[in-house]
Amino acid sequence: MPADDEDRHSERRVRSVPDLDAVREANRARILACIREAGIIARIEISNLTGISPATVSVITGKLLEDGLIEHSEGHGDDLSVARGRPKSFLKLNPHAAYAVGIKLGVQRVFISLTNFLGEVVISRARKVALRRISPQVLARLCADEINAVLGETGTPRSRLAGVGVGCPGLVDHRQGVIQWSPIFEDQFIPFRNIMEEMTGLRVVVDNDVNLVGLAEQCFGLGRNLPDFVVVTVEAGVGMAIVLDGKLRRGQDGFAAELGHMKIRPDGQLCRCGQRGCLEAYVADYAIAREAATFFAATDLGDDAAIDSTIDRLSIAADSGDETAREIFIRAGTMLGIGIGNVAKLLNPPVVFLSGERTRSAAVFFEAMERSLTAQAILPGIGVPRLEIHRWGDELWARGAAALVLETFASERLAGGESVIPPQAAE
Amino acid sequence: MPADDEDRHSERRVRSVPDLDAVREANRARILACIREAGIIARIEISNLTGISPATVSVITGKLLEDGLIEHSEGHGDDLSVARGRPKSFLKLNPHAAYAVGIKLGVQRVFISLTNFLGEVVISRARKVALRRISPQVLARLCADEINAVLGETGTPRSRLAGVGVGCPGLVDHRQGVIQWSPIFEDQFIPFRNIMEEMTGLRVVVDNDVNLVGLAEQCFGLGRNLPDFVVVTVEAGVGMAIVLDGKLRRGQDGFAAELGHMKIRPDGQLCRCGQRGCLEAYVADYAIAREAATFFAATDLGDDAAIDSTIDRLSIAADSGDETAREIFIRAGTMLGIGIGNVAKLLNPPVVFLSGERTRSAAVFFEAMERSLTAQAILPGIGVPRLEIHRWGDELWARGAAALVLETFASERLAGGESVIPPQAAE
Repeated sequence: MPADDEDRHSERRVRSVPDLDAVREANRARILACIREAGIIARIEISNLTGISPATVSVITGKLLEDGLIEHSEGHGDDLSVARGRPKSFLKLNPHAAYAVGIKLGVQRVFISLTNFLGEVVISRARKVALRRISPQVLARLCADEINAVLGETGTPRSRLAGVGVGCPGLVDHRQGVIQWSPIFEDQFIPFRNIMEEMTGLRVVVDNDVNLVGLAEQCFGLGRNLPDFVVVTVEAGVGMAIVLDGKLRRGQDGFAAELGHMKIRPDGQLCRCGQRGCLEAYVADYAIAREAATFFAATDLGDDAAIDSTIDRLSIAADSGDETAREIFIRAGTMLGIGIGNVAKLLNPPVVFLSGERTRSAAVFFEAMERSLTAQAILPGIGVPRLEIHRWGDELWARGAAALVLETFASERLAGGESVIPPQAAE
Repeated sequence: MPADDEDRHSERRVRSVPDLDAVREANRARILACIREAGIIARIEISNLTGISPATVSVITGKLLEDGLIEHSEGHGDDLSVARGRPKSFLKLNPHAAYAVGIKLGVQRVFISLTNFLGEVVISRARKVALRRISPQVLARLCADEINAVLGETGTPRSRLAGVGVGCPGLVDHRQGVIQWSPIFEDQFIPFRNIMEEMTGLRVVVDNDVNLVGLAEQCFGLGRNLPDFVVVTVEAGVGMAIVLDGKLRRGQDGFAAELGHMKIRPDGQLCRCGQRGCLEAYVADYAIAREAATFFAATDLGDDAAIDSTIDRLSIAADSGDETAREIFIRAGTMLGIGIGNVAKLLNPPVVFLSGERTRSAAVFFEAMERSLTAQAILPGIGVPRLEIHRWGDELWARGAAALVLETFASERLAGGESVIPPQAAE
């Protein structure tokens, strides 16, 4: 035996093991996820798809029915068993079992939506607001008012609300609910979860906004049946979410997947984070817009809308064949291809979902990006992820926030707790 | 429900679920790992550490004893229960339960070792060989001869050999056992596992060499009790291994963790892979040596040994204060800090183990690397991994190869199979 045997004894900490209680809990969550994925499903199908025994499926679905999380369904009209005259008992989620509010904090606006237990958006609203100029308390008050408004407009009782999910760009400590650094706030280390919980009396979760897109893709989107995938978003910044083995990977401190600040050229262009050479400084809206400002005389970059319209103008110029405009997008696309290529070198994911406003930009941007990504393979075609462009608006972010709430709090309901648990004052 | 309900039904593929059989199998593997981690341990401690019930621990350890994978032990001399006069029954791995051969293919040599079931090296040998000049068949023959030699010298019966693990730098398809691309071979797509299995009649596994270091750190080294860590090696190339949730992450095609070929400067220095701007092209031995060749007149870079001695000379010059020599190492260290910083941005691991020959180089290299890594944090000190330098030689690579073999084939023994299973001719 090695000499450090004593040390090994005192130090050892064994990784968690699936004991039977954990298996039961995992089975409950798995059955619920299986019903969510399927939409409408028979018990025996649940057993087939999950590998959980029919008897166990019966016990667990019985409890889920009792708790009102799922309900009976008449099944598909075209189902074979119906045609054979032996209708099975089908199950589906109860859309009214719980509701969640999703809030997306953007550069100059707040987007809010109310989502049911299926992740379907019931109502959504956007409010223009200059986040850099208001305090976190004022922002929380504004969010609380918006929550009351969507509940009031839809007649949803506050008691049916499982919680509120907030997505914010930048470094977010999900566990502590603290926005550590964000390009949209002057302040750092904003304990936004605590502020919101105290103000609303609701359960609140806060996460990086692209992590919420990752969750939305996993629960309701293109990643629904994929254990491993990566999401990359390009708009005000460059964001990323990593899903491996069906789990969102936030890293040790919650700061993983910061693709926008990967260094792509030492001592390169200036980034909003204050450093140089970040991928974002070549690819994000502000980077494109400042090059466009050199191209168009007297360009206004004063706010978000001005940046948007500058990029639109540049995109039109590029699509009509202007060489300088094309070159600006080609360079940005090439840099993004290098960034995604670096992700592929480290993680070798099967697929990358590309999203955000830039997906509506000039075609040359994508052509350059794909060319650049393909060219980086050490062997032709090997280790290059499939790229899928997934265009969506604010709604997917909001559904992601809802997914986070439902994931975080539905398990408490499953374990026999209340759907709405008052937040703890201190933690 | 969404309109694509039909699609969802036909497409769905549910992620694997722990059913009871899988739990039993996981429990067996977990108990074995727990005994391996502890060295010597009582049954009740296994139960406490793993959360598996005492009754289940008894049944499984009984089977492990019967199979000869573990054995009784008298316990620690200083154990309290012994002092109290109530000796417990302790268990430990049977070091002779199985043996594994580890082979590391290097730039100009082959290193081979025989390891027991504890991962202890019984014997090891190195052979100088110019891999670029010989065919895979000749190399396999050489390896087969070396295997026979170590078995013969130690009197180890061939029947006790669980298998052979081979580590190779570059792109290795672990599942297919194919070396797709390696800087040490002229050929591409070498089906080395099949060639070796046909030649030796033994089970063979092939993997990227740094993945084997990751496994060695996890099973026997600094990562023994860490679910998440990253290994970075710097010598002939820059290599990496990623362990997340206690699992080595190879990516979709087995090409993850290719840190050496992360692009750090578009259109930068030439890399051995034929592309430009890879991290390796600034940090690896050949990159340092070619700068040194500009510094020292008439420098021989003809082979591995010449490159090594050039770097040693440069290191001495740097340590004695020569500014140009220092600057070469400072630049390389700065680039490595950027590369590791990019890994931190994507994965946010708690710790990075740094290994390889470069860990013996000039002190300025490390100072520059740490400065560069620290400077990249978006907020001071946040998201920066702990760096631990782990100096070791060929032996850890070899123990990793053994770990891979024992991990791959020990479960077959556990499931009641033979320790040595003849390879399948076709697959």
